[in-house]
Amino acid sequence: MAVVVRDLEAALGFYRDRLGLPVELVLPIESDGVTIAFLPVGESKVELVQPTDPSTGVARFLETRGEGFHHVCYEVTNLAETLDRLAGQGIELIDVVPRKGAEGPVAFIHPRSGHGVLVELIEAPGGPAWSTLKY
Amino acid sequence: MAVVVRDLEAALGFYRDRLGLPVELVLPIESDGVTIAFLPVGESKVELVQPTDPSTGVARFLETRGEGFHHVCYEVTNLAETLDRLAGQGIELIDVVPRKGAEGPVAFIHPRSGHGVLVELIEAPGGPAWSTLKY
Repeated sequence: MAVVVRDLEAALGFYRDRLGLPVELVLPIESDGVTIAFLPVGESKVELVQPTDPSTGVARFLETRGEGFHHVCYEVTNLAETLDRLAGQGIELIDVVPRKGAEGPVAFIHPRSGHGVLVELIEAPGGPAWSTLKY
Repeated sequence: MAVVVRDLEAALGFYRDRLGLPVELVLPIESDGVTIAFLPVGESKVELVQPTDPSTGVARFLETRGEGFHHVCYEVTNLAETLDRLAGQGIELIDVVPRKGAEGPVAFIHPRSGHGVLVELIEAPGGPAWSTLKY
């Protein structure tokens, strides 16, 4: 679950210091114009996303809607195959083929198909898209 | 993660039939005016919440904002103690003491403290609030 925040240190003051979630990693991703803190909860993770470049979509999201829930991400074993199947089933895809995300192959499903939720799919490490996209 | 949906069967058409998440339980909760489908993912769950009573807060949420993310819930071992600590640390609580939720003792943290996210806390089964609230 990814949450857009204005100030990562302030958000960690709540998620890490008050809720007590462990911080696995704080990663500046310059290509996406964000810094992300990953806080594992069971087998899932909360991602706190702070925009660092005002020209990005996530920065505009923060300016227009304020801090809050941004998207949820699920891991799949074969991303290209999953996208082909979903497209054939009438699901509205933002990315019809896997694209190179900072942390591996990713694709987004439009909130119109996700019942109001922006859904990201990532491919599990070692899946076929990793070699296709040449990581 | 709880998602408010207009029609549970339609939402299951996406989450169960397209994303492939298993459905653990579909539970009508008359006292809250909702029916909830629970879909486990790892140690977490997606909850699809369909309002069944138009006078509830979640029904008004659906009418004004449409389908989408509603709140996230974390389990704690001692809810009353956690709430006392959070209040002392300046966190804005909607419920300052545990209240009787349909699935156990619950309390909500205001989105102003949750960086734009409505946060629910529940007590793990067998915790002290279960006997205090007489389940």
